[in-house]
Amino acid sequence: MQAPVQSSSVIKSSLIEPDGGVLVDLVVPESERGAKTAEAESMPRVKLTKIDVEWVHVISEGWASPLKGFMREDEYLQSLHFNSLRLKDGSIVNMSLPIVLAIDDETKEGIGSSSDVGLVGPDGDLIAILRSIQIYKHNKEERIARTWGITAPGLPYVEEVITPAGNWLIGGDLEVLKPIKYNDGLDHYRLSPKQLRKEFDKRQADAVFAFQLRNPVHNGHALLMNDTRRRLLEMGYENPILLLHPLGGFVKADDVPLDVRMEQHSKVLEDGVLDPETTIVAIFPSPMHYAGPTEVQWHAKARINAGANFYIVGRDPAGMGHPTEKRDLYDPDHGKKVLSMAPGLEKLNILPFRVAAYDTGAKKMAFFDPSRAKDFLFISGTKMRTYARTGENPPDGFMCPGGWEVLVKYYESLQAEDATQQPAVVSS
Amino acid sequence: MQAPVQSSSVIKSSLIEPDGGVLVDLVVPESERGAKTAEAESMPRVKLTKIDVEWVHVISEGWASPLKGFMREDEYLQSLHFNSLRLKDGSIVNMSLPIVLAIDDETKEGIGSSSDVGLVGPDGDLIAILRSIQIYKHNKEERIARTWGITAPGLPYVEEVITPAGNWLIGGDLEVLKPIKYNDGLDHYRLSPKQLRKEFDKRQADAVFAFQLRNPVHNGHALLMNDTRRRLLEMGYENPILLLHPLGGFVKADDVPLDVRMEQHSKVLEDGVLDPETTIVAIFPSPMHYAGPTEVQWHAKARINAGANFYIVGRDPAGMGHPTEKRDLYDPDHGKKVLSMAPGLEKLNILPFRVAAYDTGAKKMAFFDPSRAKDFLFISGTKMRTYARTGENPPDGFMCPGGWEVLVKYYESLQAEDATQQPAVVSS
Repeated sequence: MQAPVQSSSVIKSSLIEPDGGVLVDLVVPESERGAKTAEAESMPRVKLTKIDVEWVHVISEGWASPLKGFMREDEYLQSLHFNSLRLKDGSIVNMSLPIVLAIDDETKEGIGSSSDVGLVGPDGDLIAILRSIQIYKHNKEERIARTWGITAPGLPYVEEVITPAGNWLIGGDLEVLKPIKYNDGLDHYRLSPKQLRKEFDKRQADAVFAFQLRNPVHNGHALLMNDTRRRLLEMGYENPILLLHPLGGFVKADDVPLDVRMEQHSKVLEDGVLDPETTIVAIFPSPMHYAGPTEVQWHAKARINAGANFYIVGRDPAGMGHPTEKRDLYDPDHGKKVLSMAPGLEKLNILPFRVAAYDTGAKKMAFFDPSRAKDFLFISGTKMRTYARTGENPPDGFMCPGGWEVLVKYYESLQAEDATQQPAVVSS
Repeated sequence: MQAPVQSSSVIKSSLIEPDGGVLVDLVVPESERGAKTAEAESMPRVKLTKIDVEWVHVISEGWASPLKGFMREDEYLQSLHFNSLRLKDGSIVNMSLPIVLAIDDETKEGIGSSSDVGLVGPDGDLIAILRSIQIYKHNKEERIARTWGITAPGLPYVEEVITPAGNWLIGGDLEVLKPIKYNDGLDHYRLSPKQLRKEFDKRQADAVFAFQLRNPVHNGHALLMNDTRRRLLEMGYENPILLLHPLGGFVKADDVPLDVRMEQHSKVLEDGVLDPETTIVAIFPSPMHYAGPTEVQWHAKARINAGANFYIVGRDPAGMGHPTEKRDLYDPDHGKKVLSMAPGLEKLNILPFRVAAYDTGAKKMAFFDPSRAKDFLFISGTKMRTYARTGENPPDGFMCPGGWEVLVKYYESLQAEDATQQPAVVSS
C-alpha cells in the first residue's frame, strides 16, 4: 500500500487510471444519434433480454474499460482461461467474467454475412449497434465450469441467463444510441464512472474506498466502513471518501430488491450510521453472477474504472451456498486471496477485513474475536429474513432502527402477497 | 518471431531462459544423501502413488521451474484461476495445471504439527522430503471444473488420480533423495532439462523445435516436423534441432503404451522418415491430463525449461472425445488460440500447423487442402487401431513399414491376451 503524497492540496483529476488508460464511453453523441439510428434501422436485429441490456449499460459507460463491446472469441478465451486480457502494448488488465451476448440459430441465420447488427431492447426499441461482429460457439458447459468452478444445477445466473440462451456468442464494437435509463425512480443513483470520477474530484477526495454490496447495510458493514476511514486517516490521507456501491443488476430471487435496498441505505445515512459528508451512494449497474473468487475480481476492476483506489473485501465475496450440498460454494477465504493475486489489479489497494459479528457481551456489532468465539452471534441473511418476517426484532445494535423498519415493511408486503396468492392456488 | 543472430558460430549456453531465470534441480547432492535420508526416517510419512512419483520426477528436474515443490495454496489458486504464477519480482510465468499432492484425513492426522514430511514410493522406499509444508482443502469439484472446463464423469486423469485421492492437498519444498528411475529399459531416454540443454549446446543448435506427442508417429506428423525444419532453415537458422518428445507418464488405457511407442519412434528414425542427425528423441516424464487448451500450455512451458525455443501445435492438442457426448471435448482450434495468448509464454515461438491427412490422390500424407476436401482421408486413432487389429494395412504412405509393424505386433499381443482371458470369464 502506497503512502499518500504529503501535499494533498492539489486537486487530482483522478486517483487511479482507468484500465487501458482511457475510460471507455460508447454512447453516441447527440448530434449523431439521428443518423446512426437511421443506419441501424436497416441492419439485421438481435433481440436483447433485460440482463443483456444491463450489460450494454455496463459496457457503454466504461465499467469494463478497455472493453469496447461484447467480447469476441479472443477476449472470451482470455477471460475464461486467464481472468485477464493482454492489450496491444503488452500490458495486462483484469477481466474475470466473460461479458458476452448469446444468440440462437435463427438469429444467426438472420444476420447472414452482415458485419453490423442492431440491438433491440425487450420492448422493441433499437438501443445500440454492434459493429464488425464475430459469431462463435457458445459452449455453455465449459463457460459455466470455468467461471463458477462447478456445473451443478441451481446457479442463479446460469438458470436465468445461460441455460435459456442460444448456442452462439456474438462479439463486436458497441455504439449505444442513447444512455440506458430504467425509469424506476432510481436513475439519479446510477452515476457513470465518468460522473463518479468528477464527483470525487469535486469533493477533493485524496482516497476513495469502494464497498460492493447487494444486501441491506447492517452495523457490521458500517463498522468495517468506518474503520477503513479511520485507517486511511491514520495513514495520512486527509479526505477519504466512501463509495457505497450497491449492485443494481440481476440478483437472485431471495435477495432484497434494489428499491428496498436503496431506501434502507438512505435510512442508514439519515440515522447517522454512515456520514453523508464523506459518503457517496450510487448504483453499480452490473448483474450478479454469484461466482465468488472469479466475480470479486470483476467487482474490484469495475471500481478502478469508477475511480476508487481502495477496495474493501470481506468474507466470501460474491459467494452463496452450494446449490446441491450443505456448505458454502466457495472457501470463504479464497475471494480475498485470489483478489490479492489477480493479474491487472496490482494498482488497486485491496483492504481485506476480518468478519464482523454481533458481540453479545458488548451488545453491538464488532470484529470477531476467535479467543471468545462463543460471545459472538452470526446473523446470516436467512436469519435476518426470519427476524423480519416473524416481526421479531434482531438484537439491539444489529442495524439502525430506520433501516430495520424498511426491511420489516418489505417482508410484511411479501407475506401479504403470499396470503393473497395462496387461496388462489388452493381453489384452482 | 525473432530473426536468428547472423553469426551462429558462437555456441550459446542456452537458446531460451528457463522460467524464473534458473533451472530448478531438487535432487540432493550425493554427499548429503546419507544425512538427509537419516533425517527423513524420523519424519511423518506420506505414501505416494505411481503418478505422484511421476510428478516428483517432473518437479525435481525443473520441468516446472520455478516451482520448487508441490504447490502451496497461493500457487494452486493462481494456477487454477490465472494459469500463471506471479514471481516476487513481479514477472509472470505460465503454470496452467495444478501440480499438487493429495493426502487423506488419516495421513493429515499422522502429520500433526510437523513442518516436514518424508515421501514414500509405492514400494515403501523413502524417495523425498517435503519441507515447510502447508495443508489445505482439496476441493475436487472446483479443481476439475476449472482445469477441464467440465465435470462430467469419464475423464481419465480424474477417475485415475483425483476421485480416489484424499480431501487435502499438501504443498511444500521438495528435496529428492536420489534421481527417479523406472528400470524399464527406457531410462536412457529420460533426459532431464539440464541434460537436454547440454545436448543442444553440444550439437550447436541455433534453434530447437519441440514436438509433444503421445501417439505413434505417422507420416503426417513427420511431414509437419520436416516442414518446420525447412521453414526454420528458410528463416536463416543453420542448425535447427528437433526434440521429438513423447510423453512418458500416465496415459489413458486405450493409448499405445510407452515401450511400444518408443520402439515405433526408433523405427521411424531407422527408416529415415526423420533424420537422426538433427533429431533428439527423449521422454517427457509428465502424466497426461487430457485437458486440452489448459494442458497444452503446460506442455509448452515445460519445453521452455528443456531449452526449446520453438513449439509446434496442431489441431486439438491434449484433447480427447467428450466423455459423455459424441463430439470433441474441446474446440479443436482453442488449443492453439489459448497457447498463443497464454501469460508467460511470450518468449516461446509458437508454430501453429494445418492438419495433415492422407491425400488419396498423391497417395501420401499431406497438408489438408479444403478446396479438394473429398480427396483427403482422416485416419483417427480408433481407425488406426482397427487396421492394426484386423491385420489390414493402412493406405500406402500412411506410416513407414517398420513403424507399422511395431503397432501390428502390439495389437496382436492384445488380442492374444483377450483370447486367453475370455474363456476364463466364460467358465467362471
